Amino acid sequence: MNLMSPEALEAALRAIGEERYHILHPFHHMLHGGKLTKGQVQAWALNRYYYQASIPAKDASLIARLPTPELRREWRRRLEDHDGDGVHPGGVERWLALTDGLGLDRDYVVSLKGLLPGTRFAVDAYVQFVRERSLLEAIASSLTEMFSPNIISQRVSGMLRNYDFVTAETLTYFTPRLTQAPQDVAFALSYVKAHADTVEKQEQVLAALRFKCDLLWAQLDALHVAYVEPALPPPGAFRP
Amino acid sequence: MNLMSPEALEAALRAIGEERYHILHPFHHMLHGGKLTKGQVQAWALNRYYYQASIPAKDASLIARLPTPELRREWRRRLEDHDGDGVHPGGVERWLALTDGLGLDRDYVVSLKGLLPGTRFAVDAYVQFVRERSLLEAIASSLTEMFSPNIISQRVSGMLRNYDFVTAETLTYFTPRLTQAPQDVAFALSYVKAHADTVEKQEQVLAALRFKCDLLWAQLDALHVAYVEPALPPPGAFRP
Repeated sequence: MNLMSPEALEAALRAIGEERYHILHPFHHMLHGGKLTKGQVQAWALNRYYYQASIPAKDASLIARLPTPELRREWRRRLEDHDGDGVHPGGVERWLALTDGLGLDRDYVVSLKGLLPGTRFAVDAYVQFVRERSLLEAIASSLTEMFSPNIISQRVSGMLRNYDFVTAETLTYFTPRLTQAPQDVAFALSYVKAHADTVEKQEQVLAALRFKCDLLWAQLDALHVAYVEPALPPPGAFRP
Repeated sequence: MNLMSPEALEAALRAIGEERYHILHPFHHMLHGGKLTKGQVQAWALNRYYYQASIPAKDASLIARLPTPELRREWRRRLEDHDGDGVHPGGVERWLALTDGLGLDRDYVVSLKGLLPGTRFAVDAYVQFVRERSLLEAIASSLTEMFSPNIISQRVSGMLRNYDFVTAETLTYFTPRLTQAPQDVAFALSYVKAHADTVEKQEQVLAALRFKCDLLWAQLDALHVAYVEPALPPPGAFRP
C-alpha cells in the first residue's frame, strides 16, 4: 500500500462500507422488508439493546484517553446523546421505548438474561478494542456512522410500512440519530484524515473500520442463526 | 440457591453440559455425520485453529496468577500439552496437521486472514474472561473438558467413517486429548469442589461453565450461518 491523500483515504473508508456494512446482511433485508415475525423483531431489539447500552462505556473509555478539553468536549457530546441529560431521553432510553413498544418486559431486556452470547462477544470486543488500541484506531472504528443515515431511513420507513406492531413512537430512537451521526462523522473523519499520515496508520484506520463492520455483521449473524435458520437459540437465550 | 455439597455441585456442573455443550449443535451433528462438504470441514478446521492457538495464552495468563509452584506446575502441563516440547508436537502443531490434511495452506491458516469474526470474538472473550475473573472462575471455565472425550470419540469415528478426505493421520490431534483431558479435569474439578465453598462462589462457578459452553456454541453458530445456511461468509472470510 502507498500513502494515500486524505481524500483517497476517505474514499477507501467509504469503499469498506460498500463492501461490508451490515445493510448488506440478509437479516437487515428481512427486518426492513417486513419478512420477520414479531418474535424475531423482538429478538433483534433485545439483542441490539446491549450494543446501545455499551456505547457510552466505549465512549467514556475513549474520552479518558483524549488529551485536550476540546477533544474531550467533542466526544462528550456522544455521551450526552446516548445517556441524555435527565430531561431529554438519550439513545439508551429511547431504545427501551422500542423494546417497550414491541411488548418486551423492560426489566428482562435490561437484565441481559436473554441475550445471545454472539451479541455479547461482538459488543464486548468493540468496547475492548476502543480501550486497547490507539486513539486513532478507536476514533476510526466509530466511522460506520458514515453509513448509518442510509440504513436508518431504510429501517424506519420499511418497519413502519411493513409491521402493524411498529409505530412512529416506537421508532423514536432513530430520528435524532439522523442528525447526530453526521455531526459525529464530521469530527471523526476529519480527525482520521488529519492524523493517519503514514502508511501504517492508514492501514490501521482501514482495519479498524473493517473490524467495526465485522462486529455489526456478527450481531446479525447471531440473530440469523438463532431466530431465522436453523432458528435454534442457544440454551438460555430469549425464545419468542 | 442454597449451598450445595461438593458432589451436588459436580452434578450441577455436569447438568450444564447436558443442556449446553456444543455436542448438541446441529453443525456438530453434520460434521460427524458426514453431512458437510470438504469446504465446510475446511472452514471448521480453519476457524477452530484460532481457538487451539489461543489456549496457551489463556493458560499462561492463568499460571501468571496461580500462587504456588505446585499449582503452577499442574497448570504448566497444559502449556506443554498444547505447545509441545520441541520434539513431540503439541496440540497447536497437531491441529495444523489437520488443516494440512484437509488441503489448507498452512500460512493462510496461521495468518488468520480467513477467520470468521464470530470465531475471533468468542475466542477473545474466553482469553479475556480468564484474564479478568477470579482464579476459581478461570479454572471452572476449563471444565468443558469433562464433556470432551465423548464429543471427540463421536468426531473421530464419524469423520473417519464418513469422509474419504479424512485419515487417521489427519485426526492425530484428538488421540492424546482423550487422556490429557481427563487428567486436566481431575485437577480442575477437585479444585473447584474444594474452593467453591459459598453460595456466591458456586454460582460463579456454574456461570463460568455456562459462559464457556456459550462460546463453544457461538463458534459453531458462526460456522453454521457462514457456511451452511444461509451460507453467507462475511466479506473477507474464507470461502471454500
